[in-house]
Amino acid sequence: MPELEQVLLAHGGGGLLTRRLIEDVWLAAFRDPALEGFPDSAVLEPLPGRLAFTTDAFVVKPLFFRGGDIGRLAVCGTVNDLAVAGARPLFLSLAAVIEEGFRLEDLRRVASSAASAAREAGVRIVTGDTKVVERGAAEGLYLATAGLGVVPEGRDVRPSAVRPGDVVLLSGRIAEHGVALLAEREGIAFSTEVRSDCAPITELVERLFASGAEVRSMRDPTRGGLAAALYEIAEASGVTVVLQEEAIPVAPTVRGACEMLGLDPLTVANEGKLVAVVSPETAPRAVEALQATELGREAAIVGRAFERRERPLVLRTRIGGERIVEMPYGEQLPRIC
Amino acid sequence: MPELEQVLLAHGGGGLLTRRLIEDVWLAAFRDPALEGFPDSAVLEPLPGRLAFTTDAFVVKPLFFRGGDIGRLAVCGTVNDLAVAGARPLFLSLAAVIEEGFRLEDLRRVASSAASAAREAGVRIVTGDTKVVERGAAEGLYLATAGLGVVPEGRDVRPSAVRPGDVVLLSGRIAEHGVALLAEREGIAFSTEVRSDCAPITELVERLFASGAEVRSMRDPTRGGLAAALYEIAEASGVTVVLQEEAIPVAPTVRGACEMLGLDPLTVANEGKLVAVVSPETAPRAVEALQATELGREAAIVGRAFERRERPLVLRTRIGGERIVEMPYGEQLPRIC
Repeated sequence: MPELEQVLLAHGGGGLLTRRLIEDVWLAAFRDPALEGFPDSAVLEPLPGRLAFTTDAFVVKPLFFRGGDIGRLAVCGTVNDLAVAGARPLFLSLAAVIEEGFRLEDLRRVASSAASAAREAGVRIVTGDTKVVERGAAEGLYLATAGLGVVPEGRDVRPSAVRPGDVVLLSGRIAEHGVALLAEREGIAFSTEVRSDCAPITELVERLFASGAEVRSMRDPTRGGLAAALYEIAEASGVTVVLQEEAIPVAPTVRGACEMLGLDPLTVANEGKLVAVVSPETAPRAVEALQATELGREAAIVGRAFERRERPLVLRTRIGGERIVEMPYGEQLPRIC
Repeated sequence: MPELEQVLLAHGGGGLLTRRLIEDVWLAAFRDPALEGFPDSAVLEPLPGRLAFTTDAFVVKPLFFRGGDIGRLAVCGTVNDLAVAGARPLFLSLAAVIEEGFRLEDLRRVASSAASAAREAGVRIVTGDTKVVERGAAEGLYLATAGLGVVPEGRDVRPSAVRPGDVVLLSGRIAEHGVALLAEREGIAFSTEVRSDCAPITELVERLFASGAEVRSMRDPTRGGLAAALYEIAEASGVTVVLQEEAIPVAPTVRGACEMLGLDPLTVANEGKLVAVVSPETAPRAVEALQATELGREAAIVGRAFERRERPLVLRTRIGGERIVEMPYGEQLPRIC
């Protein structure tokens, strides 16, 4: 491969080569007026209302996987963090740490995939930064995104807002991102291909609010899975959430893979799911609203909040028993996002 | 060293260990209400006016150096990108990619240093993310920050706004950050210790506007140095900037070091300097305003814009000759920020 088709240390120097890389890769993919002229900051028109602001770093391995890549993941991850704060995502920043020798072709693929995901989610990538480190000082590419959105009047979702009686909704099948990544990484083939669920959940959130649902709390169950997301909500609200195992959608292949690999699907990462806790009165219309979307077809009521018992999170199993679900301790699957 | 005094891969898993790390390191240093309860996004009160939004990744080597460390650098770099857009910096995000085995003590030192720099600059760190990669998949620690600020009414600075006759101001001595880093990295001792100039330039910018100066363009001359900053402005504005070599403040030790190492001080990175182009009428009061600040004591008029000549940037040397200054091509000093 010709030398110039790889990222060189000099591409990170802030000179002409840096500019060419930015033009050739990022500007070509994102085509945003805010990026023209290499300003130090994007200057944006005033945004009315409360702002939501979030950030994520992405070190996923491998960089390309079934259902997505690090570019799509970075955009969806950040958009989803804004969405579950009740915000309409508007603007993203994207910073890249690239290992010397990384193929420009792969970088363009990542940029193009981030651009598609941004279009899908209705956000603009308006500012960025590119750094290059020596061979061996990173594994290919790490990304960091930050996101900015506006929280419409009247939306007030907080982890601590759940009350006994509230209903837990889940927008679809869990554990697909984590299992897809692991399969890819370890070269495991399942009878049916498992794809990452990596997607923006903005539409799910907008439909939920449009339905008139009283939304108390939302989370996107990424690292730590559904278990971590609900544990944190239950703990912050001082309630106990009881999940119904049989109600939680899990694809049979994914369930099989988890059994084979000794993973609990409840703690495996998702990248395109919404967990929402809503008032009991509005739960039926909330589920209906989610089910009316493409991503939410399999949305279901999966649990309910009760007065606080001994522990914050309990699973009522298929066979009628109860199992305490703890906050996952450490790492089930490293470098999942 | 006990195992728990190092960052483990499991600290990045999104479970209990991640929470403990965040509480122990980041929340302890930043103490911001927006960070309490681990929300997916910080929700901020409405900000009146145009917004400035920027991001940077930091891969500086070494992580600790004379005059700063990666934490201070990350905060100053992002704050300064907002300031030179004419914005008042308000909020920062901070994402970290940590190598397994990194000492928690060092991470706390970085967090505490980022917190001090944020206080100095008057900004709040309101959202963050922590990822951990295996030993060898990063060199200790990389950071990515994004920044959010408000551009007060009436400020309109753009790289393309410079007109012939406009005056170029520089807030102080150049090339100190790059030389300090290189000295540290290569173990070179100079007769006088060179320290990085890493600092927030927010006060310089505020004083400049308060003086009534008509500010056309501003840059903070980081990667690529003064040369890259002015080349970009001159090119975007369609003018030629002529710099007066004798007017550019360079510390004698730094000049000596550059000569010894074969570096052009014009292209060496700074992390606490302001380059501003102002109207000729308001240049005197602008310099005076900068000189009245601690950081700007040595502020000077270092050049002037002319009708476009053959090339955008020219240096009039001490001995009266003229030298064309090109946009730096690639990397003089890798991993400077």
